[in-house]
Amino acid sequence: MAENVVIVGAVAVGAKAACRFKRLRQDANVTIIDKDELISYGGCGIPFYVAGDVSDETELRSTSFHMVRDEKFFLNDKGVVAMTGTEVTKIDRSNKKVHIKKSSGEEVDISYDKLVLATGSVPRKLDMPGTSLKNVFNVSNLRDAIAIKKKITQGEVEKAVIIGAGFIGLEMAQALADMWEIETTVIEYFDQVMPGFVSHSISLMAQRCMEKNGVSFHLEEIVQALEGDEYVAAVKTNKRTLPADMVIMSVGIVPNTILAKETGIDTGPGGHIIVNDRMQTSDPDIYSGGDCVVIKNLVTGKPAYIPLGSMANRQGRVIGTNLAGGDARFKGGVGSFVVKIFEKSLAGAGLTIDVARKEGFDAVSIQVAQFDRAHFYPEKEIIYLELVVDRKTRTVLGIQGWGGEGSEMVGRINAVVPLITNKARVEDVSNLEIAYSPPFASAMDIVNALGNTTENFLDGMYKPMQMDEFVECWESRDNGECFFLDCRADADAIPFQEKFPEIWKSIPHDELERRFDEVPRDKKIILLCNTGIRSYEAQINLAAHGIEDTVSVESGISGLKDCGMEF
Amino acid sequence: MAENVVIVGAVAVGAKAACRFKRLRQDANVTIIDKDELISYGGCGIPFYVAGDVSDETELRSTSFHMVRDEKFFLNDKGVVAMTGTEVTKIDRSNKKVHIKKSSGEEVDISYDKLVLATGSVPRKLDMPGTSLKNVFNVSNLRDAIAIKKKITQGEVEKAVIIGAGFIGLEMAQALADMWEIETTVIEYFDQVMPGFVSHSISLMAQRCMEKNGVSFHLEEIVQALEGDEYVAAVKTNKRTLPADMVIMSVGIVPNTILAKETGIDTGPGGHIIVNDRMQTSDPDIYSGGDCVVIKNLVTGKPAYIPLGSMANRQGRVIGTNLAGGDARFKGGVGSFVVKIFEKSLAGAGLTIDVARKEGFDAVSIQVAQFDRAHFYPEKEIIYLELVVDRKTRTVLGIQGWGGEGSEMVGRINAVVPLITNKARVEDVSNLEIAYSPPFASAMDIVNALGNTTENFLDGMYKPMQMDEFVECWESRDNGECFFLDCRADADAIPFQEKFPEIWKSIPHDELERRFDEVPRDKKIILLCNTGIRSYEAQINLAAHGIEDTVSVESGISGLKDCGMEF
Repeated sequence: MAENVVIVGAVAVGAKAACRFKRLRQDANVTIIDKDELISYGGCGIPFYVAGDVSDETELRSTSFHMVRDEKFFLNDKGVVAMTGTEVTKIDRSNKKVHIKKSSGEEVDISYDKLVLATGSVPRKLDMPGTSLKNVFNVSNLRDAIAIKKKITQGEVEKAVIIGAGFIGLEMAQALADMWEIETTVIEYFDQVMPGFVSHSISLMAQRCMEKNGVSFHLEEIVQALEGDEYVAAVKTNKRTLPADMVIMSVGIVPNTILAKETGIDTGPGGHIIVNDRMQTSDPDIYSGGDCVVIKNLVTGKPAYIPLGSMANRQGRVIGTNLAGGDARFKGGVGSFVVKIFEKSLAGAGLTIDVARKEGFDAVSIQVAQFDRAHFYPEKEIIYLELVVDRKTRTVLGIQGWGGEGSEMVGRINAVVPLITNKARVEDVSNLEIAYSPPFASAMDIVNALGNTTENFLDGMYKPMQMDEFVECWESRDNGECFFLDCRADADAIPFQEKFPEIWKSIPHDELERRFDEVPRDKKIILLCNTGIRSYEAQINLAAHGIEDTVSVESGISGLKDCGMEF
Repeated sequence: MAENVVIVGAVAVGAKAACRFKRLRQDANVTIIDKDELISYGGCGIPFYVAGDVSDETELRSTSFHMVRDEKFFLNDKGVVAMTGTEVTKIDRSNKKVHIKKSSGEEVDISYDKLVLATGSVPRKLDMPGTSLKNVFNVSNLRDAIAIKKKITQGEVEKAVIIGAGFIGLEMAQALADMWEIETTVIEYFDQVMPGFVSHSISLMAQRCMEKNGVSFHLEEIVQALEGDEYVAAVKTNKRTLPADMVIMSVGIVPNTILAKETGIDTGPGGHIIVNDRMQTSDPDIYSGGDCVVIKNLVTGKPAYIPLGSMANRQGRVIGTNLAGGDARFKGGVGSFVVKIFEKSLAGAGLTIDVARKEGFDAVSIQVAQFDRAHFYPEKEIIYLELVVDRKTRTVLGIQGWGGEGSEMVGRINAVVPLITNKARVEDVSNLEIAYSPPFASAMDIVNALGNTTENFLDGMYKPMQMDEFVECWESRDNGECFFLDCRADADAIPFQEKFPEIWKSIPHDELERRFDEVPRDKKIILLCNTGIRSYEAQINLAAHGIEDTVSVESGISGLKDCGMEF
């Protein structure tokens, strides 16, 4: 067992590993080294600090009992020596030493029995002019956050441009637009927000919600330069030039593994440190975790980069246990996430349909819309869930969703995560035991309905039309190939019928059995209702009468409207 | 495959099985028979209807698109014949017929190919005088609910007594006390509310919350008679007589299986119908589900009675599939539940510590307290989770919790359910992937902290004191055997030290390392902090200095206070 543990990096994984190890080995020495003076902070809290929800940066580096986690705290409360403002410049593995350089300029060697590399990540850099202009920021550490907030609170920012529509980009956009009423525009290279994390239709729901709250978006747009003298004044893309007095770069992060590479530890193609399930690197005396490593994706079995504070914390504990001679394992992850979008939330886990297909799965996805609580309960809202499954094996590959004002969405995603991890089948989603009481769920909860609906699709009973297909179909509606059959009550459907008399017809579902004659047999029938329940039943009824060329629009009019569709 | 399906009972499982079967077999005939005219209602919504959250009883039997589920709805929308006001008086299995009696008095036989018994449950009756008095109600069906609400809205109820502190009892107590300001008292035979569902300390948190909101409780009390002429006027127990102008009996339900027994279908010791995992009874042409059957408890492997609307719905779909020649399975359940207690919630799944021990497990339970969101996020509250595990195998047997104003608690319980179902180990709770973002969780979420803490206990690193033990210890504090060491900041701890100078001492955790001399070595040290984190660390620090006779109070001062403890 180790007597001297040295840890490089003192934000999430490093601090956790240090404290866990010290609790297990009160007699041992632990030193954590960080080049910054601000350590052990909750990086995921930065957007909330910028927004003003968190009033002071010290809160992000305090304990729940309001002690600031500084050198003194680590020493007195944890028995851990923290050396801040100190850079590790070299690792000498043969002599088991690290070479450090203090802010004072002093350089010394420190010996270790076991070493932990918790060097985290650095912002991905875009290769274009102007990134060094003033008022161009990353959101990679607490100093960036403090600088951004200072600019804002001084009233120096009127127009902000955010480059990148991932987690951080969306959270920062909200922070600026909502709390500070800054004119905020997000530019994204891909054709949707949260690319790789949710499907196109779910991304649209999040985007529309943000637009309603004042954030502008330009998708499929390439930023070519940041313009200005000294201070940034505009963002030039391949399509336009946007004035901006602040630019936030949130185009992702890359692992900070220079030290690891220099000392010859195995890294992968992306530069990430490779670790086993004990979080050990290729050098058994050196552990690593957090934003600088790849872990195992439990869906694909391949290496995955999941740089999240929660992953780092759990890995840190595993490292701490193993440093003390234990045998803890970190099996990997499925990349579950949640992001608050104004009053709603976007969450998911596992693979999206696009990623699943790229990974070689014969994947299909099914989306359903349903109230988050019993439909008779006064407080409720329609939320959306999408399941990604492998067609042949019926294995669950991923789940994503939109909606809910509290933990409704993330709670459901979390409940399905163990199923994804265990390679469960769609039937397990149908029968998943979701605790029921009207203020919390439906008797047949949306999670179960999602499983049921996916089963129905796989069994050939249900032929859905997805949002993208509907939009395409709607745009070419004048070609006379499709007919829109609205299964809602007349009060909802008649206005559509009156507006589009040639192609749209109201036949409430409970009248369908006696009005089959009114359904055209020479056209593709696009069945619609509010969320997709009645249109699904209508599809079955029509099939029994020999009308087979039908589709039922997934998530119904409700889903289309939440995707921004206007009729 | 069946051509004629007859279903006895049209509330949850019956209606679901009928509709699912009909969707799969549009050519077949399905008849659902119910002796009541009010069918297919959400029984779990009754307390919310009584409270006034749901304004009209028709909402409980309407679809999400506001159609009342009556005979006409089933026929036109579902293609299912519903015969209401019709009693099935006999099943003739040899001729595959049921004998029915309509409300008109007409009696006929109906043939079936497959039969479904969805006869539900009836209220458990207490054998005592006065249960037939007027204004004594059960909450077993919609008619009871309508009658109760009518009495209340007519202003006829000033003092209500509720007998039984299970789900329904607590929900009804809230409905009466909160919305209608009725003086409400709950009487319970056992020594806690929600007996069998949560531990004593968690039950106390729920009880104290209800008391603060005006509901009174008498526990460990036996109701001996309901008194009054014509109308109930008082409830007599073994300890007192309580005036009451309304009494609600919520002492549980028993399966309604007279028909099944008469026709010779296998039932268990409690009278429940026995089914296999296809929901088939001992007669392969007869299926059953919902409140009249036992299913498999996936923790114990034994039969379990889980009469919940959600179970019924999922079973109904399995039955519908199998009626149509499919092969759907219902594997069982772990009994997850949630109940709203004013603005907070109580939830759980699997076994409580008491039940686990009764079932023969060498079970232990660990409780933790932590914020439901990142501690630096402005909206958050301390919630409590308790894990029940088998000591030797480290298998997770159950989880229960208290707190949270929305879906925070139930979301976490749901996330652990698949682990309980899969007989996962405590380490899987420690590493469970809970989606992280500060408005939804902590980086090391309470679920993970619960796993970690339980591991620490099993590994001998952590010696907790539970609430009941603390109370006992506190009550005998004058015997001089114990010393209370408060690890919080002075500002919190000094008032206690001043009040109890002989036995209580404030040594903030960050000062402990240099103040060991002040810790008495001849007494048992009871370590406290706000939630149990600092006291746990202090325990480790003390052990390293040879002070081993210590305990760390589980959930800390926060937990004790929420259990109603006053110092």
